Amino acid sequence: MPVVPDSPIEIIAFDWVPDFARGFVRDLRPRWACEELGLDYAEDLISAVDRPADHYQLQPWGQVPVLRDGDVTLFESGAILLHLAARDPRLLPAGVQARADATAWVFAALNSVEPMMFELGNVDIFAKDEEWAKLRRPGLVDFIRGRFARLSDALGDKPYLVGDFSIADIAMATVLREGVEAGLVAEHPRLAAYLDRCTARPAFKRAMDAQLASFKQEPVAA
Amino acid sequence: MPVVPDSPIEIIAFDWVPDFARGFVRDLRPRWACEELGLDYAEDLISAVDRPADHYQLQPWGQVPVLRDGDVTLFESGAILLHLAARDPRLLPAGVQARADATAWVFAALNSVEPMMFELGNVDIFAKDEEWAKLRRPGLVDFIRGRFARLSDALGDKPYLVGDFSIADIAMATVLREGVEAGLVAEHPRLAAYLDRCTARPAFKRAMDAQLASFKQEPVAA
Repeated sequence: MPVVPDSPIEIIAFDWVPDFARGFVRDLRPRWACEELGLDYAEDLISAVDRPADHYQLQPWGQVPVLRDGDVTLFESGAILLHLAARDPRLLPAGVQARADATAWVFAALNSVEPMMFELGNVDIFAKDEEWAKLRRPGLVDFIRGRFARLSDALGDKPYLVGDFSIADIAMATVLREGVEAGLVAEHPRLAAYLDRCTARPAFKRAMDAQLASFKQEPVAA
Repeated sequence: MPVVPDSPIEIIAFDWVPDFARGFVRDLRPRWACEELGLDYAEDLISAVDRPADHYQLQPWGQVPVLRDGDVTLFESGAILLHLAARDPRLLPAGVQARADATAWVFAALNSVEPMMFELGNVDIFAKDEEWAKLRRPGLVDFIRGRFARLSDALGDKPYLVGDFSIADIAMATVLREGVEAGLVAEHPRLAAYLDRCTARPAFKRAMDAQLASFKQEPVAA
C-alpha cells in the first residue's frame, strides 16, 4: 500500500468514525485514485469528534477529505479527483469529447445521484426512528430507483462509464455503494455488475484497507 | 443579449416550466457564464413535459442544461462551467492554488450545499402538503443554517469566493438563490450581501431575462 509518511501528497482523513461509516468516508475517493496511479500518499488523521479549529480554514464544514499536493491544498472529493487526473492522465480517457464526458459523469455522480443517497442515509441511519423518515422513505426510494434505471440505461453494456476506468467510475462507484445496503443496486443487474467490476479492482481494495486501517479501534466518546 | 441562432455554442433548455421554476432552471448557469464572457450562444428549446426520446442520449435523466460547443457536447451544469472557464480564463482566478480553490468551490456548491436545497424544494414545494414534509422541515432547515453559517465564515469579508468573480460564484449564487424564498439567506448578512453582489451583475440579469424569455407563456398540459 502506498501510504508513505512525508509523501508530497497528503490526504486529511478522520482517525475514527462510527462503525456504519467505516469504508464509506469520502477520503476513499482520493485514496482510490492514488492507488490506481501508484502514487504514494501520506495520511494526516484528525479527530471527527473534536475537529481541530484550524481544519475549518481548509474545509468550510470541517469535513474530509482535504488533499495537499506539494504547494496546493484543496477540498471536495470531486475537485480532488479532477486534480489527480490532471496530474496523471491515466484516470482520464483520451480525446476532448471523452474527457468532457468523464468530467460530466463526475458531476453527475455528485450532483445528480449522491444528493438522494445523502437523504437515504438520513432516512435509514441518522433519523431512522423518526416518523418523518418512515413516511419519507417510499417516495425517496422510488426516486432513487428512477435515477438508477436511467443510469443503467446510460451505462448499457459498457464496462465503465467512459472508455477505460476513470475518475468518473471512482465517483459513481463510491456513490452507488451508498445504495447497496438498501438493496437498490441489486435491482439493476448492469449496475450491480458495474459496481462489482469497479470494486474488484486491486486499487479499490487497497484504498479500502487503508481507510479501515486508519481508524482507531477503541470507542471514542462523542 | 448574446442569444444568437446558429452560434457555435448551443444551450439545450426547456421551452416551458411551471411558474415556481422559472428563473431557477439550471441552464441559468451556462447562460450566466456566456454572458460574463460575452460569448454568443444559441438556444435549443425542448419540451420538459414530453421530453424527446433522443435527449436521454445526451442527458441520462432527461434534464437540462446540455451544452454543445462546436464538436463537444456535455451535460451537468458544473462540468459545463468548468468547460466554459477552460475556454476563456476570465472566469477563473490566476494561479494554481486559486484555480484549485475555484474548482473546489464549484463542487462545494453542488455537492455540499445544493443537495440540501433539493430537499428543501421537496419539502416546501413538491411534497408541501405531505405529513413527512412538515415533520422533516425543522431538522432540514437547521442543517441548512449550519451549512450557511460556515459558508458565511469562509466567505468572510471577501467580495467573491476566490479572487475576482468566477465560476465558483455562478455555482454558489445559483444554489443560494434556492434558499431565499425560505428566508435562509437573509439570516446571514454576508451571504445576503454576497448574493446581491452576484445577482446585481449585468450578466446575471441578461441570463435571467433570456431564460424567462425562452418560456412559452401559455399553460402546457402535464
